[in-house]
Amino acid sequence: MSYPDDLREAVDRHLETLDFSGEPGTAGLGKAMRYSLLAGGKRIRPVLCLATARSLGQPIGDYLGIAAALEMVHTYSLVHDDLPAMDDDDLRRGKPTAHIEFGEAVAILAGDGLFAEAVRIMASVPADPGRVLEAVRLLAAATGVEGMVGGQYVDVSGQDLDADGLRRLHSLKTGRLIQVSVESALALGGVQDGRRDSYRRFATELGILFQIVDDILDVTGSDEELGKPQGSDERHGKVTYVSLYGLDRARELSAESHRQALAALEGIDGESEDLRRIADYIYRREQ
Amino acid sequence: MSYPDDLREAVDRHLETLDFSGEPGTAGLGKAMRYSLLAGGKRIRPVLCLATARSLGQPIGDYLGIAAALEMVHTYSLVHDDLPAMDDDDLRRGKPTAHIEFGEAVAILAGDGLFAEAVRIMASVPADPGRVLEAVRLLAAATGVEGMVGGQYVDVSGQDLDADGLRRLHSLKTGRLIQVSVESALALGGVQDGRRDSYRRFATELGILFQIVDDILDVTGSDEELGKPQGSDERHGKVTYVSLYGLDRARELSAESHRQALAALEGIDGESEDLRRIADYIYRREQ
Repeated sequence: MSYPDDLREAVDRHLETLDFSGEPGTAGLGKAMRYSLLAGGKRIRPVLCLATARSLGQPIGDYLGIAAALEMVHTYSLVHDDLPAMDDDDLRRGKPTAHIEFGEAVAILAGDGLFAEAVRIMASVPADPGRVLEAVRLLAAATGVEGMVGGQYVDVSGQDLDADGLRRLHSLKTGRLIQVSVESALALGGVQDGRRDSYRRFATELGILFQIVDDILDVTGSDEELGKPQGSDERHGKVTYVSLYGLDRARELSAESHRQALAALEGIDGESEDLRRIADYIYRREQ
Repeated sequence: MSYPDDLREAVDRHLETLDFSGEPGTAGLGKAMRYSLLAGGKRIRPVLCLATARSLGQPIGDYLGIAAALEMVHTYSLVHDDLPAMDDDDLRRGKPTAHIEFGEAVAILAGDGLFAEAVRIMASVPADPGRVLEAVRLLAAATGVEGMVGGQYVDVSGQDLDADGLRRLHSLKTGRLIQVSVESALALGGVQDGRRDSYRRFATELGILFQIVDDILDVTGSDEELGKPQGSDERHGKVTYVSLYGLDRARELSAESHRQALAALEGIDGESEDLRRIADYIYRREQ
């Protein structure tokens, strides 16, 4: 079983068509946004969204707008996370980070622009307004203080975290956006609440799995595989699953989390092959 | 005639009730967001929104959600604009800017958080989903590359601007958000396209008026009146209405723009007293 590359290719083709600037004065901003957005990667969030659509028996073309918005929000968070005042990283996906390439001011604005355009694109999806509005609301909530930005804050503010605190940090910083990649597709599909439960449990567990593996790879991966300097977390003195539990126990935790994610899929009323492939990929990935 | 302070007070009371963090880990972020959001000011954008609602004969209480969202987006833009990599300003509304008070990382995240929560709040307004969704879409478009963020980019990227370029810069950076303060209320009110024209002309002219007066005050105001160091634009080598036309001609342009705004109000099918007061205030303001 392998990663659903057909969905990734659909995402990449769609992202390639996005052009944010319609006039010469802002062309440089559009270029910086596309630089970070088109830097590649597995597109896990939009692929999750499309895999959920497929699991619902829906045409994936109808979900490309929200899929693109999810990747744009993810990219914006990376651009801001890499800034000198934040993690101060020079490399991302093997390329110079946005502020290295375009300067700090443009990087801040490229992140801001990606977020605004993500909301605009999602709010412009031609479907039932009530469903689209729910997807927008879920995305904004997953991105705000009780979500991604809140998690980034906990991460940079150097709070003393125990195991619960670490789990909470990642559930905010990474987990919420992964969850909403599934939930926004459920919203657009008009899926009723009761039928959402198994999807939600799957998505929540996937977020946890993703972070444990990320922490392991920060220690075991090479610079080249990671596309960024290895050991970055340790240098920043960050609490991670590895620093808290050690490498062996972190590996056990990732195996347990992978099992839980697959167990949640059992409860899904629909095709789940692509979702399973994504879980397998996240568990086994080396970059 | 004076500024519609009853509307401003309604806005301030509502903003005061907003609490973004529901847990200890992110309380510091919520505090930083409230610090900038509650720093005072005339609340021109949300007051414009409420004045438009009143002009439509609608209860202003139904519009407080989008009014709050508009002020939050405006505040987020100020917080990011003040950052060292951008305008590098230490004072805003007479208080230390967010990055001076809380550090640069928290200021970046406070801006990001204000934007996300603004979208969440606007998308949660309990009204017809189609109307709410249109308001969200308008806000996102006015905030993105063809709006506020694009204007900030033109401003910081040091492009050589002639009169048209200057007008375009401000129409993006300041004008679009002022326009959408009126337009989002029209969207929520379900106002048909034909009836929107005069409101739109008013809002567009108001944005221009606002910027001309801002440029004049940057030269003629005192630090205390401005709440920030006088002459900031000149020190940053920015092209302004004053640098381009001189003080006297800039004053004539502001008078002309004020007349145009009032003329547009003549075409409004509804009560326009509060909108007129806002235009008068913007024309005559000293800070």
